[in-house]
Amino acid sequence: MCVKRGKTFIICGPSGVGKGTVVARLLASDPTLYFSVSATTRAPRPGEENGVHYHFLSMEQFERWIEEDQFLEHAQFVGNRYGTPQMYVDKAMEQGRDVLLDIEIQGADQVKMKRPDTVRIYVAPPSWAELERRLIGRGTEDMEKVKSRLARGKEEFAAAKDFDYFVINDTVDRAVDEIRAIMTAEHCRPDERIALIDQ
Amino acid sequence: MCVKRGKTFIICGPSGVGKGTVVARLLASDPTLYFSVSATTRAPRPGEENGVHYHFLSMEQFERWIEEDQFLEHAQFVGNRYGTPQMYVDKAMEQGRDVLLDIEIQGADQVKMKRPDTVRIYVAPPSWAELERRLIGRGTEDMEKVKSRLARGKEEFAAAKDFDYFVINDTVDRAVDEIRAIMTAEHCRPDERIALIDQ
Repeated sequence: MCVKRGKTFIICGPSGVGKGTVVARLLASDPTLYFSVSATTRAPRPGEENGVHYHFLSMEQFERWIEEDQFLEHAQFVGNRYGTPQMYVDKAMEQGRDVLLDIEIQGADQVKMKRPDTVRIYVAPPSWAELERRLIGRGTEDMEKVKSRLARGKEEFAAAKDFDYFVINDTVDRAVDEIRAIMTAEHCRPDERIALIDQ
Repeated sequence: MCVKRGKTFIICGPSGVGKGTVVARLLASDPTLYFSVSATTRAPRPGEENGVHYHFLSMEQFERWIEEDQFLEHAQFVGNRYGTPQMYVDKAMEQGRDVLLDIEIQGADQVKMKRPDTVRIYVAPPSWAELERRLIGRGTEDMEKVKSRLARGKEEFAAAKDFDYFVINDTVDRAVDEIRAIMTAEHCRPDERIALIDQ
């Protein structure tokens, strides 16, 4: 039973839903989990370390990595490029570690196309009113930004309907338990298990 | 979050794999679980109660139920008929209870055809050598019967490759935990969850 290969789980969800807390709790509960570090062309902010917060690449390097098909997904936001390098993901999976990707929904679609065995989990708020309360509660954004994040969340929600799983983050405990159950269940798929039994 | 509808989980597996113990532990751990009682035309054995061990039907009643499409699946063994009445399953599911069906693999295929949202779990032995040891260890059958059960188990194993999940019963604790994880995960499917969020 020791030849388990890791699986990749994508965690998507609207801004303010509490994904960061859920991911932190998942990582704390299982030290073998690998959390994918994105690559970006944006400049490091004070305190950010290369390879820890991001892999910081020049635009030239980033484009070379695209040409070399080194990204599981990549996108552009406000003039900067962001991507998920596949080599770290592959290495972790080969070591039998499960991988968490915290990426945008468009990126999730790119990964699923490339790797159909990737499991996509959408973290949803218990209600849109509650998401609005959480966004306002953070106190970091003005009302206009809250409204625009909310509108984007609803748009994404419609696009997430073909995700594999929906986890409602009403309490962090429940959301974490459900994601852990999904990870356990996905390791019980026949393709992985049949190989473990002598035939 | 209170409108949850129950789901049906089929537990299949070869004779001797320990399904009975696993099912008993699942039922003990969750009193809301409904374990489906089969109908049969065979005569009750001493101590067997109608509606508890089986729904005992006459051949005439059984055939009427088939005509009325009252079975999720039915089959014939050694001159007796066995079937899963759908009314008890439906009632439990409407009450929000998950349902366990401990049935043969042919029955599992019938149920899946009729109810594609049914989840099929195959409980496998860690190895065929271990299954043989368990069958011999029960001490209830001669070697010829052990060999024939083993051969049937291997045949079924090949047919179970398109099941949704494989759980390896190396330890009962692990098998029970995995089945519970599968049940939790299957309640996180988008079709069930999206309805819970106001849109």
